[in-house]
Amino acid sequence: MTGTAAIIGGGVIGGGWAARFLLMGWDVRVFDPDPEAERKIGEVLDNARRALPGLSDVALPAEGTLSYHTTMSDAVAGADWIQESVPERLPLKHKVFQTLQEHCRPEAIIGSSTSGFKPSELQNCATRPGQIVVTHPFNPVYLLPLIELVPSEANPPDMVARAAEILTSIGCFPLHVRKEIDAHIADRFLEAVWREALWLIRDGIATTEEIDNAIRYGFGLRWAQMGLFETYRIAGGEAGMRHFIEQFGPCLSWPWTKLMDVPELTEDLIDTIAVQSDAQSGAHPIRALERIRDDNLVTILRGLKARDWGAGRLLNAQDRRIDSLPASLDDVADLSAPVLTVLRAVPLDWTDYNGHMNEARYLQVFGDATDKFMALVGCDMAYIATGGSYFTAETHIRHLSECRAGARVRVETQCLLGAGKKMHLFHRMFEGETLLATGEHMLIHVSLATRKAAEPDARVAEPLGRIAAAHAGLPRPEGAGAAVGVR
Amino acid sequence: MTGTAAIIGGGVIGGGWAARFLLMGWDVRVFDPDPEAERKIGEVLDNARRALPGLSDVALPAEGTLSYHTTMSDAVAGADWIQESVPERLPLKHKVFQTLQEHCRPEAIIGSSTSGFKPSELQNCATRPGQIVVTHPFNPVYLLPLIELVPSEANPPDMVARAAEILTSIGCFPLHVRKEIDAHIADRFLEAVWREALWLIRDGIATTEEIDNAIRYGFGLRWAQMGLFETYRIAGGEAGMRHFIEQFGPCLSWPWTKLMDVPELTEDLIDTIAVQSDAQSGAHPIRALERIRDDNLVTILRGLKARDWGAGRLLNAQDRRIDSLPASLDDVADLSAPVLTVLRAVPLDWTDYNGHMNEARYLQVFGDATDKFMALVGCDMAYIATGGSYFTAETHIRHLSECRAGARVRVETQCLLGAGKKMHLFHRMFEGETLLATGEHMLIHVSLATRKAAEPDARVAEPLGRIAAAHAGLPRPEGAGAAVGVR
Repeated sequence: MTGTAAIIGGGVIGGGWAARFLLMGWDVRVFDPDPEAERKIGEVLDNARRALPGLSDVALPAEGTLSYHTTMSDAVAGADWIQESVPERLPLKHKVFQTLQEHCRPEAIIGSSTSGFKPSELQNCATRPGQIVVTHPFNPVYLLPLIELVPSEANPPDMVARAAEILTSIGCFPLHVRKEIDAHIADRFLEAVWREALWLIRDGIATTEEIDNAIRYGFGLRWAQMGLFETYRIAGGEAGMRHFIEQFGPCLSWPWTKLMDVPELTEDLIDTIAVQSDAQSGAHPIRALERIRDDNLVTILRGLKARDWGAGRLLNAQDRRIDSLPASLDDVADLSAPVLTVLRAVPLDWTDYNGHMNEARYLQVFGDATDKFMALVGCDMAYIATGGSYFTAETHIRHLSECRAGARVRVETQCLLGAGKKMHLFHRMFEGETLLATGEHMLIHVSLATRKAAEPDARVAEPLGRIAAAHAGLPRPEGAGAAVGVR
Repeated sequence: MTGTAAIIGGGVIGGGWAARFLLMGWDVRVFDPDPEAERKIGEVLDNARRALPGLSDVALPAEGTLSYHTTMSDAVAGADWIQESVPERLPLKHKVFQTLQEHCRPEAIIGSSTSGFKPSELQNCATRPGQIVVTHPFNPVYLLPLIELVPSEANPPDMVARAAEILTSIGCFPLHVRKEIDAHIADRFLEAVWREALWLIRDGIATTEEIDNAIRYGFGLRWAQMGLFETYRIAGGEAGMRHFIEQFGPCLSWPWTKLMDVPELTEDLIDTIAVQSDAQSGAHPIRALERIRDDNLVTILRGLKARDWGAGRLLNAQDRRIDSLPASLDDVADLSAPVLTVLRAVPLDWTDYNGHMNEARYLQVFGDATDKFMALVGCDMAYIATGGSYFTAETHIRHLSECRAGARVRVETQCLLGAGKKMHLFHRMFEGETLLATGEHMLIHVSLATRKAAEPDARVAEPLGRIAAAHAGLPRPEGAGAAVGVR
């Protein structure tokens, strides 16, 4: 599902939306009166192009077309989705909605990035209130999946469902907030923590760095994968959630937070924070910090992906939605040619101190290619669950050319032998027409119960035999059967 | 640095402390009157043994001795560190400290796991107030590095410094809280979020699952690697922290949190939370949830380690402190034997759907072995920074036996050739006496500027030649020079 998105208001948030849509194949039309808008959005796009494609284990669709427009009316022409990210001033937002609705298609969805306003406040005085809904993202928008989707009673349910569907299709997680409330859900927590943090700094208890360390070395790690309640459920242990609450309930009346009160944001306090923040992070310019953050987020997200949990589970679902490779041998156009088994971008976390893709990641890619080939011949997760699988016995890799994070690579797989317990594969990894590496692998079919070699079932033996026969006519690949150091 | 730790009060927190000390080589003496204590601590230890050793990229010291004691006086005999984790009732804690101080060494450190009490409150009425300090951990204690170290004016600075040193040596991050305050630092945030969450549930805005999703798909991911202020510094963009605060400052007076008020913890509210939590997480028993959480945390922590950032940076520092492998050729006892280049446990995140270490991780281990060998012959990070390095040209791996998460593996490396631009290595990976795999690798010395083959500098050529000559007398390894599928 692709279409045309209009981005009203650039900056970090609008730029992040532009990147999400563009990299998922949508055409993006930007309106922002800031003369620096094109540069600023370009920088967000650079970051997104660096981080997002490799977050996926399959190829993203081809990028859409990006254009800048000098009027809102021009920007929204033909748009299916219009995202408003102008400053948080209600009269300004009202004025923007007025103009948008004069020119946009009535069936377009107008999402607002507002952190705090309720949809009914935004819809107030609008020509078509039901067209406007809160879709509140989190920075960096191109990496964090959460979008708070907050409708009011004015929004027809099918419009809300369509908004959720579009957000899901571009890799977001629409959290449907069922009752509108100031600051929705997540920002209420952020605001609570922010107020408490201001007190701690004002009272000289902790510096910005000490507060950040208190978060990232402790509960921040828990919250990246489970949230508050699932974490506490575990803390409650065998006695359960009820026990946990009852045990810690009394603290509620203890003076453990200053949040009954609101700190005054004096010049002095702002100064203190700015100076402490410089001391903590000033060694890295903002652009460098952004990239460090994105490297970290990609690493964490890819880690959760491998565990199929939390935000990683969302990414896996997204990969399944956009995967363009054949799902079975019947979908392979030409069985007599090497088969495409990997098509993807090299993620940020795959490079090493030499500045290129680490050698172990080549084997990871070849391993993925083998997994895909196995799935094509019927040795998929369902088959493996019945107790048979292939184990790699032997591997030979030739590194022929370097590749870097962001490179779009593909693997073509030739079956040298597929008979009895043996499966002998030869993978070629390319970037464009450049051969990066070859991987030759001998796999043995095993029983997962005995962990010993065993004949595969006909569900696998038959399709494997079919592709082995079809590949028998291919020339033997250059480099097959070679040993290390032997020319 | 090891010693003897007494754990007063078991359970999830005390058990976590026991695990940290024990797995870092300390003897641990436990006192807990609960007849189930041994079973409960055993379960925490099982989890810790499963997760902690593989978090490290070097071998942990041999485990200390664990013993259970029926009296506090017996448990604290000879202890260097005494950790109190009894329920949060001040009179009970006072009574425990009285007994501990009657029997323990006066120079032992008594740390309290209290979440909320100030050290001066704990020290009140104590025989030796200066011996008691708050050391507040976070669950799971064996994985999260944060310890809030909160002294009062009664604690001598050298005692606080010693406490920090011991905590660091067992892999923790002691956050020195400079002014005592109720609930220290981190729990003030947790309490603020908890109160806000109770309001959201009470008012029917969100369920436990919706709240958890609002956290783990959004700001939770940010907080696992940077905290609050560093994240907002980036959000402020080029305009900086001051701009960010000024822009969002006005929200402070908006009704974005309910925290001016405290929700009443009625039976109804407790019921609602317990029922929602069952719906959200009830499919997984607590033991399974614990392991899912630990798998996720290990994955995130190891990811941050590869980026050398946040909690991962702490882990790298800890690895350097406990690494037992030789740092240079001069430290290698017998140059004529294959050299030990890896000694470590297989981490939780290295296994795949076949239930064993994934093939790509074998190459990761062999790559680490190669890196270590390179460092031994002088091609370390300092040398690489001057523009020379080795790239792997060719690899041959034979998988001879399976291994699983937790397995303690080692690699012994034989140098087959080390002359000119070439370095030909043969790695053998063992678990105990079982040969798991061999890795044969041809590496080429390159100039990092031209990315082309180049002779190494004498800083590398000389030691490499020395070990190559010393290994020349070794028998050629079985499997060297082999090709895939050729017997």
